[in-house]
Amino acid sequence: MTKASPAELYAYVKQNAPVIENYIETLAAFGSQPEGGIVRPVYSTQWFDAHKQLAAWMQEAGLEVRADAVGNLWGLSRGTEAGQGYASGSHLDTVKEGGKYDGALGVLAALTAIRFLKELYGAPRLPLEVVALCEEEGSRFSKSFLGSRAITGNMPVEELDQSRDADGISVAQAARNCGFDPDQLAAAQRTDLAGFIELHIEQGRLMEAAQVEIGVVEAITGIKHLRVVFEGQADHAGTTPMDLRSDALVSAAQAVTKINELAREFGRPAVATVGKLSVEPGATNIVPAQVEITVDMRHPDPATLEQLKQRIVQISEEAAAAQGGSVKIDLLMERQAAPMTPEIVNMISSSAEELGLKNMPMVSGAGHDSQVMVEKIPSGMIFVPSCGGRSHSRAEYTPIEEILPGIALLAQAFYRLAY
Amino acid sequence: MTKASPAELYAYVKQNAPVIENYIETLAAFGSQPEGGIVRPVYSTQWFDAHKQLAAWMQEAGLEVRADAVGNLWGLSRGTEAGQGYASGSHLDTVKEGGKYDGALGVLAALTAIRFLKELYGAPRLPLEVVALCEEEGSRFSKSFLGSRAITGNMPVEELDQSRDADGISVAQAARNCGFDPDQLAAAQRTDLAGFIELHIEQGRLMEAAQVEIGVVEAITGIKHLRVVFEGQADHAGTTPMDLRSDALVSAAQAVTKINELAREFGRPAVATVGKLSVEPGATNIVPAQVEITVDMRHPDPATLEQLKQRIVQISEEAAAAQGGSVKIDLLMERQAAPMTPEIVNMISSSAEELGLKNMPMVSGAGHDSQVMVEKIPSGMIFVPSCGGRSHSRAEYTPIEEILPGIALLAQAFYRLAY
Repeated sequence: MTKASPAELYAYVKQNAPVIENYIETLAAFGSQPEGGIVRPVYSTQWFDAHKQLAAWMQEAGLEVRADAVGNLWGLSRGTEAGQGYASGSHLDTVKEGGKYDGALGVLAALTAIRFLKELYGAPRLPLEVVALCEEEGSRFSKSFLGSRAITGNMPVEELDQSRDADGISVAQAARNCGFDPDQLAAAQRTDLAGFIELHIEQGRLMEAAQVEIGVVEAITGIKHLRVVFEGQADHAGTTPMDLRSDALVSAAQAVTKINELAREFGRPAVATVGKLSVEPGATNIVPAQVEITVDMRHPDPATLEQLKQRIVQISEEAAAAQGGSVKIDLLMERQAAPMTPEIVNMISSSAEELGLKNMPMVSGAGHDSQVMVEKIPSGMIFVPSCGGRSHSRAEYTPIEEILPGIALLAQAFYRLAY
Repeated sequence: MTKASPAELYAYVKQNAPVIENYIETLAAFGSQPEGGIVRPVYSTQWFDAHKQLAAWMQEAGLEVRADAVGNLWGLSRGTEAGQGYASGSHLDTVKEGGKYDGALGVLAALTAIRFLKELYGAPRLPLEVVALCEEEGSRFSKSFLGSRAITGNMPVEELDQSRDADGISVAQAARNCGFDPDQLAAAQRTDLAGFIELHIEQGRLMEAAQVEIGVVEAITGIKHLRVVFEGQADHAGTTPMDLRSDALVSAAQAVTKINELAREFGRPAVATVGKLSVEPGATNIVPAQVEITVDMRHPDPATLEQLKQRIVQISEEAAAAQGGSVKIDLLMERQAAPMTPEIVNMISSSAEELGLKNMPMVSGAGHDSQVMVEKIPSGMIFVPSCGGRSHSRAEYTPIEEILPGIALLAQAFYRLAY
């Protein structure tokens, strides 16, 4: 085996930029919409065509290809020694209308990194694998992280039949339609991996603002979602003086304002967002009787997240009381923060330094397969920038010059781990 | 003609409470829903059945009955002398789901007042008429005040064919289906009335709060409706720090709060209401990009109303700018305030004093047929209380004891005007 230099590897990645661009554009054609944007829900024709294209590329790269019980697609670069190997990848499905990079870029980064390493240095000492995870977004079935939960043994077998899409089709049935064998769910579990690295676009503007090439993810944030329902009293907007009203929207407006101020006071990385608000009865000339909002709050520290939640509950109660109304609050969802594995994080970070890449530690504000993988497999994430932070949208974009550092970094980390 | 005393008249009205209650309950059955509430859009079967029932009652009371071109139903108590007469009434149609009193009570009050006067004192000196106006609410066709606009010559003939309901049926066609002759629209105009009085429920809680029996309406308020669209930027709720956002809902919330405070500062009778608010894209985990609100503002003084509007525009612009967003503002609707005719207002007010009724001057915050009638015919309004201010709802309620003073007042005013 030739002794590699980081500079040589980076130069090779740059030289192969057209290969990467071709992968990205070809994959983006599966599910692409006339107005732009990509619709590629798991197990759909578009998704399955993309899956087959990826399998063909893996084979061309000399990898051993297989799909597991739920359709995670694996491409193995077999090691010359016995030992646990490393995998990299991300997901192939999109949100309801997504872009070219969310998920897909992580799969193609893994494919190209492993392919380029093989081309430069031959077979690795320890096994390296590309994985195209079958589903992350939860855009077809309501539960997300289908692929990574199958791999880590966290997918209940009942879910195969019970989880159904809008047409009533079960996960099992949809998977069988693509030729997978969901009865083999248990066999999809991987207990033989030494590590997992996921490359992903940032989906935010922090890297752009800081002008760095690489985000080294130290943790994926924790999330709580509340539903807050403010109850007031419907009244005629013309005949009810201001001082006799109990206006649920005035309560909700006060809560929205104060929740925003609260998250600003907490400071980065705390965020709190009211993304949905609906008014009943919702007529121009009727004082609102009921307003329902959702509050999405995130923080990587569980105690701080809980404190945020408690303050938001208090704000909501005060806002309702100020209008003589009442409030009902439900916890819709909570997901614990997931710290990445320090050894993997350090490996990514020192590899970035070796390559001379401007990098910074980050907390991922969005959820990713790595938060599921890390429950069983040492894991880390590499972020590359997102233009304007655009994501989950046809406007999602990362130019090739900002992708190359990420792929070089993944290759360099894999070189150090497996060559 | 017997010389009447107000006490005798009031006693007769009270003694006939069961007659009034029977009218109210019988009329309420037309269009009543299993869960309560009344659905009686103009020209519907339910409405036409109510129309026929009223015509029968008018005939029983010895009135000369006719329906005009658009279906306003008139019942005339012919005068013994030549001269212009007086009319009273309100509308027979309901909002999409209304109660027993809005409109209907004004028609039945006119019928009973004229009937009782006739029973006590025989034919009037000047003509007295009951009118059941065919449409006020605009719940079937988008333009309201159909009946009173036909009577005052303010209904364009094109509207008969151009104004259509949700099924595409025109006003003319629907009117013809009930046997009316809309081609005679011009003949529906009345230029021979000396005055019009409308009795109506308050639809608010001011009378309840002041513990008065009668509201003497001095003006119907002016209204402006604005549509305000706040534009921000959609962003991922997890990956976009608070300080990099342009959240359209935070702008809208600030505007809702400040509009509410503004109307409180202006004081009664100023009101301003945000009754509708919609969020785009409206997902739990996306920072709102666009929020549309409506603002309903009312004041009887045109200059103050305009000042309210200008302050609301300014508040909206500031709220958008505070989040780095923009705003678009449209005037959706404006209706000038309508002062009632002083002679009629004074007549109502002095008649209330003669009857010993606790009364107070009021501004109507809601629109009424009288605002159209007053453009051509001297007009005034009598309010009776609404329990809890409930209106435009199945919960609408006024007990018979609170209705009797209103009917006695209407009868006393008519006695003074026409006997």
